[in-house]
Amino acid sequence: MKAITIIASMAVAASVTASAEAPLAWTDASAHTPQEGAVKVELRPDTTLAVWHGQRVGLQALLTPDALLNGKTLRPRMKSAGGMQADARFMRYTLTNDFRACGVPPELEPWAVADIIDLDTALTVESGRNYPLWVTVEVGKDAQSGELSLELVDEASGKVMAEIPASITVQPFSLPDPSSKDYFHLNLWQQPYAVYRYYNVEPWSPEHLKLLEPYAALLARAGQKAISTIMFYEPWGEQSNDKFLPMVETTKKKDGTWSYDYTAFDRYVEFMDSMGVGPIIECFSMIPWDMNFRYRDEAANGEYAYLKTTSDTPEYVDLWSNFLSSFQKHLDEKGWSDRTVMAMDERGLADIQRAIKLVDTYAPKLKVSLAGYYHPELADKLYTYSIEVEPWPADVLKRRHDLGLVTTYYTCCATPAPNLFSNSDPADGAYIMAYSIATGADGYLHWSYQNWTDDPLGDTRFKLFAPGDTYFIYPDGRSSIRYERMVEGIQMAEKIKALRADIEARGDMKLMKQLNEALLPLQMGRRSKHATTAVIVENLQNDLSAISAELAR
Amino acid sequence: MKAITIIASMAVAASVTASAEAPLAWTDASAHTPQEGAVKVELRPDTTLAVWHGQRVGLQALLTPDALLNGKTLRPRMKSAGGMQADARFMRYTLTNDFRACGVPPELEPWAVADIIDLDTALTVESGRNYPLWVTVEVGKDAQSGELSLELVDEASGKVMAEIPASITVQPFSLPDPSSKDYFHLNLWQQPYAVYRYYNVEPWSPEHLKLLEPYAALLARAGQKAISTIMFYEPWGEQSNDKFLPMVETTKKKDGTWSYDYTAFDRYVEFMDSMGVGPIIECFSMIPWDMNFRYRDEAANGEYAYLKTTSDTPEYVDLWSNFLSSFQKHLDEKGWSDRTVMAMDERGLADIQRAIKLVDTYAPKLKVSLAGYYHPELADKLYTYSIEVEPWPADVLKRRHDLGLVTTYYTCCATPAPNLFSNSDPADGAYIMAYSIATGADGYLHWSYQNWTDDPLGDTRFKLFAPGDTYFIYPDGRSSIRYERMVEGIQMAEKIKALRADIEARGDMKLMKQLNEALLPLQMGRRSKHATTAVIVENLQNDLSAISAELAR
Repeated sequence: MKAITIIASMAVAASVTASAEAPLAWTDASAHTPQEGAVKVELRPDTTLAVWHGQRVGLQALLTPDALLNGKTLRPRMKSAGGMQADARFMRYTLTNDFRACGVPPELEPWAVADIIDLDTALTVESGRNYPLWVTVEVGKDAQSGELSLELVDEASGKVMAEIPASITVQPFSLPDPSSKDYFHLNLWQQPYAVYRYYNVEPWSPEHLKLLEPYAALLARAGQKAISTIMFYEPWGEQSNDKFLPMVETTKKKDGTWSYDYTAFDRYVEFMDSMGVGPIIECFSMIPWDMNFRYRDEAANGEYAYLKTTSDTPEYVDLWSNFLSSFQKHLDEKGWSDRTVMAMDERGLADIQRAIKLVDTYAPKLKVSLAGYYHPELADKLYTYSIEVEPWPADVLKRRHDLGLVTTYYTCCATPAPNLFSNSDPADGAYIMAYSIATGADGYLHWSYQNWTDDPLGDTRFKLFAPGDTYFIYPDGRSSIRYERMVEGIQMAEKIKALRADIEARGDMKLMKQLNEALLPLQMGRRSKHATTAVIVENLQNDLSAISAELAR
Repeated sequence: MKAITIIASMAVAASVTASAEAPLAWTDASAHTPQEGAVKVELRPDTTLAVWHGQRVGLQALLTPDALLNGKTLRPRMKSAGGMQADARFMRYTLTNDFRACGVPPELEPWAVADIIDLDTALTVESGRNYPLWVTVEVGKDAQSGELSLELVDEASGKVMAEIPASITVQPFSLPDPSSKDYFHLNLWQQPYAVYRYYNVEPWSPEHLKLLEPYAALLARAGQKAISTIMFYEPWGEQSNDKFLPMVETTKKKDGTWSYDYTAFDRYVEFMDSMGVGPIIECFSMIPWDMNFRYRDEAANGEYAYLKTTSDTPEYVDLWSNFLSSFQKHLDEKGWSDRTVMAMDERGLADIQRAIKLVDTYAPKLKVSLAGYYHPELADKLYTYSIEVEPWPADVLKRRHDLGLVTTYYTCCATPAPNLFSNSDPADGAYIMAYSIATGADGYLHWSYQNWTDDPLGDTRFKLFAPGDTYFIYPDGRSSIRYERMVEGIQMAEKIKALRADIEARGDMKLMKQLNEALLPLQMGRRSKHATTAVIVENLQNDLSAISAELAR
């Protein structure tokens, strides 16, 4: 593998080249910007947007410093209209490659991708380089149409060196609050373990929870519906960089009975509650990948012992019948039973059915979820059920929805595209979310959120899977183009639901036809070089804005 | 390759086995019936159907002779209700294998498939064998709900040996006439050449045209919109069993000018007109696969000569500018100019563009069509344009439809499934046609109709392509399960269009929602072992009937 260097975010000696074009312009956010050389997207001196109240909007800009800007230290700044909270950040490069599959990656040429939306920093820029910027606008409940400007301020002189306007039309519609019950069902499995490793703090300590705040805030903003909790060490064996510590300490006493310490579990759930994440508590896993359960053995001075077993043994039933009885009692005391789901990931049908039977017997107030394969036998039983897009029969999606069960699509290393890898087309994130709702599912699941590599800011490649598959939020709570475009898609999905309900209530057949025609390209799921996710998403965005405008007349 | 024998349709010595079940039952038509052994479909003693006026309905039944029937010669017969024309035929086995691709087939085990709907014949049956039957019902404009019966009559005694009823509800809706302008755009390229070869008659003779009648009648019944005509020998080189004779005799005179004899062309077009096929006249091909054009050379005593050229030469321009000028003049005289389309098949963009330019210059009244790849440059130019399903951008389908241009999907050897091979799932034919309309296209194209193998009744395998790809109508005008299920799908497509228009006109938002939900599984195009084309088609048929019933209340 050839080593490549991400061009340092500092001024280096460079020849000054004059440019006839303006050094700052809006671009679309559907293409990755190379660090050097021509960009393939259209550059626009201004832009217009139609938005709803409650919407989070992302805008990408590109700075290509001319001779005047070369060597200057610039800080992006937003001038914003009333009721809008806008901020602008330089984007930051990290490494990826073209691997889009499972397993150990082959040797592939790495390349630098501007996936990270950096912290609020100034940058010393040089001509000949590309500097993408990301603007995030939160459109408040009282926001009014108006103009925003992205400015680049020279740190030395305080002068505005470049400025581009964006004209925002606020349409008279509001997105639901992401915490509302019927909002898009987002489920990104969390890895707080990576955070305490990276910052070297005590698990579940106040310092740890404090560090987790920005990640939880981004989850809440997107509409995250589930808190990922771990019952036993270790649900997924070797596949992650950081092991998943249990949030329950299980002890086998000398008399053969069991006791449980729920301190960490309670602390994490209460923390996520306080951050607005939930309400579902997902508990991993009755059928971990190694079927190996760790506990403290009082007879061995409290040392760790392991029960390596299968789901059809008396030992397994003893472990789980005792655990489930205690757990439901604890959840009852906390008032959490009706929001708790025993969660399973990609196991065989017989194992799943045995686990369900134990839950039904020993903790009947709890629900069950699965992310895995499609089993017709489980279709009406699992409260939340997530499988890859393709195998879902459309009539089952509808039946589950009508039954009040939650169905989500997931993507993982097995889906080359569309996906949320660091090398995925940026529009994929928006596409997948809107596609889910348009085709009768209720949301999206991803097995990782902040499952960091050894150098999460510098290199998204991991020993397994496509690069970036394991995380898309970066250290210090840095967002990414992948997260922002995912949020964009979730909001498109909510617009689709709201517009459909509104049009049905009005009985406006013409607009219903227009909405159906707008959704058809997405529903067909047909992508090609002539109909990329970027094209499909952009057309749908325009159609949804036009239908909103029509409804508002 | 192991030789296998199709079990002869005659009694052979067999042990008589008693069966507790009735020997005659309805089955669904979505699974191929093996000649012997258990069948995997549900057997029903009776069946109910909801139909529209003008509908052609196919029903499959299965005879598994018991001891009583063993050795008897049986003839199927229909008792039918008023206003319905029903007939019943034994199905007939031919050979296929599991090859579903292009190119030279590998050695694969052949198997017998009951694809052929045989002529009106009696059959001596034996227990231990399966005998599928096919019932075709034409529901007339004045048909009323009632009961049909399939009877099996013993030829020797005249006694009815078995009988099963079918209850038909005629809904108060009519399908459009298949010849109407906006009907599903079906385009099956014809091969009358195979027919004169098979029956050894003179091309374009009265005997030949007489023999072509049943094939033309089946085309007209299905809604065929185009008459396939050949300008020069030979558009497709070696890929067919029978060469495509030109319908125009082109002569280069001694003075270097050209003359044309349109006798065969006129005769074929007039024959197809008389059979109700059309109105489009498709003319192959300005850019044949070998770019080799045959003509008679007066300077060489009228012997055949060949112009092997490319589309960018003066010779090519000379050949086609003269031909097109004369051809348009001839078409004007016949009154056919506005229905004639210069047709091209799978050539490069530059060739296509040069041909279009010649048409625009020398025969500007004629239109142009292409079956091939998707070229954005041609999307608004080609009158009829057919490409495989996947590459069509959905927004282009809509734009072309709104512009009055005709877009069709084709399937060929490159599409493993769904398709119309003799080894395809029978429901595929219905699925593809309904899918076309539900996803914004106007119809379907197939490159062959009766492009027979050496033994078309006995073996559908050919030296190239998947078996059955080259034809699905058999000698003596025998229909097939593939043709009948294709017609079923075309009629579903017409029901979708009619119901949508009706519901829009009524402004019934509830039914529109119901129709949209019914179409979604088809539009999604997502097939799996849990959602086969059979399941998707059956669900949609039921939904369309339920919506029709609701509208009729």
